[in-house]
Amino acid sequence: MEEDFGEWYRRMLSENMLVDDRYDVKGMLVYRGAGMRIIKQMSRYLEDLLEEDGHEPTLFPLLIPETLLDMEKEHIAGFEDEVYWVTHAGGNPVERRLALRPTSETCMYPMFALWTRTFADLPIKVHQTTTVYRNDTKQTRPLIRTREILWNEGHTAFATREEALQNIETITRIYTELITGLCCVPVQVNRRPDWDKFPGAEYTIAFDAIMPDGKTLQVATIHNLGQHFSNVFKIQFDDEGGNKKLAWQTSYGPGFGRLLASVVSVHGDGKGMVLPPRLASVQAVIIPIVFKDADKGKVTDYVQKVVEKLKSSGISYKVDDGDDRPGAKYYKWELRGVPVRLEVGPRDVEKDAVMVVRRDTGEKQSVKLKDLDLQKTFKGMEENIRSKARENFDSRIFTADTLADLEENLGEGIVTVSWCEKNECAKPLEEKGTILSILDDEGECIVCGKKGKQVRMAKTY
Amino acid sequence: MEEDFGEWYRRMLSENMLVDDRYDVKGMLVYRGAGMRIIKQMSRYLEDLLEEDGHEPTLFPLLIPETLLDMEKEHIAGFEDEVYWVTHAGGNPVERRLALRPTSETCMYPMFALWTRTFADLPIKVHQTTTVYRNDTKQTRPLIRTREILWNEGHTAFATREEALQNIETITRIYTELITGLCCVPVQVNRRPDWDKFPGAEYTIAFDAIMPDGKTLQVATIHNLGQHFSNVFKIQFDDEGGNKKLAWQTSYGPGFGRLLASVVSVHGDGKGMVLPPRLASVQAVIIPIVFKDADKGKVTDYVQKVVEKLKSSGISYKVDDGDDRPGAKYYKWELRGVPVRLEVGPRDVEKDAVMVVRRDTGEKQSVKLKDLDLQKTFKGMEENIRSKARENFDSRIFTADTLADLEENLGEGIVTVSWCEKNECAKPLEEKGTILSILDDEGECIVCGKKGKQVRMAKTY
Repeated sequence: MEEDFGEWYRRMLSENMLVDDRYDVKGMLVYRGAGMRIIKQMSRYLEDLLEEDGHEPTLFPLLIPETLLDMEKEHIAGFEDEVYWVTHAGGNPVERRLALRPTSETCMYPMFALWTRTFADLPIKVHQTTTVYRNDTKQTRPLIRTREILWNEGHTAFATREEALQNIETITRIYTELITGLCCVPVQVNRRPDWDKFPGAEYTIAFDAIMPDGKTLQVATIHNLGQHFSNVFKIQFDDEGGNKKLAWQTSYGPGFGRLLASVVSVHGDGKGMVLPPRLASVQAVIIPIVFKDADKGKVTDYVQKVVEKLKSSGISYKVDDGDDRPGAKYYKWELRGVPVRLEVGPRDVEKDAVMVVRRDTGEKQSVKLKDLDLQKTFKGMEENIRSKARENFDSRIFTADTLADLEENLGEGIVTVSWCEKNECAKPLEEKGTILSILDDEGECIVCGKKGKQVRMAKTY
Repeated sequence: MEEDFGEWYRRMLSENMLVDDRYDVKGMLVYRGAGMRIIKQMSRYLEDLLEEDGHEPTLFPLLIPETLLDMEKEHIAGFEDEVYWVTHAGGNPVERRLALRPTSETCMYPMFALWTRTFADLPIKVHQTTTVYRNDTKQTRPLIRTREILWNEGHTAFATREEALQNIETITRIYTELITGLCCVPVQVNRRPDWDKFPGAEYTIAFDAIMPDGKTLQVATIHNLGQHFSNVFKIQFDDEGGNKKLAWQTSYGPGFGRLLASVVSVHGDGKGMVLPPRLASVQAVIIPIVFKDADKGKVTDYVQKVVEKLKSSGISYKVDDGDDRPGAKYYKWELRGVPVRLEVGPRDVEKDAVMVVRRDTGEKQSVKLKDLDLQKTFKGMEENIRSKARENFDSRIFTADTLADLEENLGEGIVTVSWCEKNECAKPLEEKGTILSILDDEGECIVCGKKGKQVRMAKTY
């Protein structure tokens, strides 16, 4: 791309009317039709997977009394600088300050406690698609860093630690199906260092995508909460032997805004967005090409036949029979990332064919109408989009043996280096980037040369 | 029903785990799996209808700066006593107080103004499924009167008044499809008296259901906003002649909580809920009936055949092969309102049949497996549920000629009386109930006997 990534990204969001960031509260985004349609595909897909796995769809309240939010000490310490507080209703002060949920653990778990008496009441697995609120003081960026975050959050309580761990594996699989399956976005799964885990969790697993500018974008997290919250909120049950036990918990969520940002950025090209077919609300655009009035009738009739074919295969389509020149139409629909364009002119009608143009490769092919199988084309396109993204992703994974190497590669992607785990050696590393994860593998610290652990680093959004 | 309606209603909500009202903020409800599943059927159905009509799915911010909320004078006067205010973020006061949206006109319309330059930018038609916040001081009731309201709100801007009126007709049709079609709940469409219209609207049309205790429940409203908001928020455009014009607007919304309340209440009976089949997430429950171990194998195999049949017809089902006695299972699934129960015992296997038990009528019929067509059964059930509710509704529509008659009938449903439109005669009427609508038809005031208009009255939730 000739433009700078940041410029291109902002142009995509506004020209494709995905979102509008001109609303009069900083960091609060307006999701427009084109953006919301893609997010709805994602959220319905995820909700279906979670519900197949036994999660109940729920909706818990937005407002959390200060007394509840404060109960888990690490948790409130992690969020207190970012919480929005409701202090008045109408002209009167409220009895207790009410927080806008920054996440829903402290809202949900008192209810979990009410629902849990014996082992037979477990597991509890719920999810909700909703917004959370964090007055993040870093620079806001549309979809990437906002103060109103649109996500799906899952929360559980199990009778045993093993079931909680099993659940983390299941959710890892489901999130991978969403992110790398449906959205075709490759990610690295990283267990965050202790200082970067979710406040109140035992540990946090994150899904990191790599953006075209080499920075990583955390698109989802899964937290093993152990018994921290169940202890505080008294989620306890009688086991089969009649002994009181505390539940084991997990919570997790992907951000739909960030997922949309990664889909736009990772697959896009100089012509605009490239949407994986299952995410596109318009999967095919039909463009009648008529230069002579005499051809109009037969092309229009033929377009109707093409439409019938698409309908019967369950493909969502649009016919663009507006007054613009074909070139202008191509430009517009390529910008929007519509997976295939079907051109229909008089010669196509004669051949009983359509010209199929793929958005991902630009390939043009004349296909007999009876042989047209766009579902098959889409499957191939999805694989191609995914593997192209994967190749690019793999080429952005580096190893560095010196600080200079680290610095050079950090702008391109994720870099593995070694670190002795001492604070004084962390400082020069963290001046250059962020530690995503500490691995089990050993190595020699690139600062002091002493024995240490391998760590993955990147510049992050 | 032997119980009082209020008791029965609360029992339905809790025993069926639809919602939980024990959350520690008054009026803020927890929507549990069974309730949220029904609401998701409603919201997806409505969203699809709106999007087919050209509405864009959107999500606008929750927080509205005080300056925006205050711009339309009637509007803020109508809401100021109920608005929740965010005054702090983290430890610091926010620059301007931020309201939790009580409804989204003042949030959306500044954006509409940015999007509107010429007539070609219109119409704008958007919708969002979301929550709004009103610190209603009346007694809260689960699903019926809450302070966090789950709804879908639609908002438009048109170039002409005619298009806005046409849109009101379209939305009336769509809401009728949702409420009386999908949910089978009969309603009366009432244009509210001026003193009861939406603050800032020219007029408000409301959809009133009648609950078993004779009180009406407003489940949806449509507002003709005229040019009140477009004038204040400067939603203006150049018409074809290049003249600046103000847009014509409408806004509307059904409350999903109230719709759920009406579905539960209007169709339910002494055994529990009766769900219209398209709203049920479990449409059929299969109950294997085995008293002798020797029969177990063949019943289990046969149940698998029944399952295959249901799957291939796109019916959502559950097999209840738990240890409870059949009677206990019948009780449980009837309580939950599952449309049909399929009993499968050894004799059914021999006859290659299943016993089909309809929830709405209790009818039992042995049906050959090859003839089983539940989709057809469901269609018949839906019609029956709808017409039974309609009959009951019609029997609750009264006319009264005296104050005594009015008082007697008001506890049963909607009563038409005549009123001279003077304040002193309104008083004795409003001591007994609420004026839902003033009709064009004339009549003699039942208080003073002078010429007046017919009005519809009810006790309302």
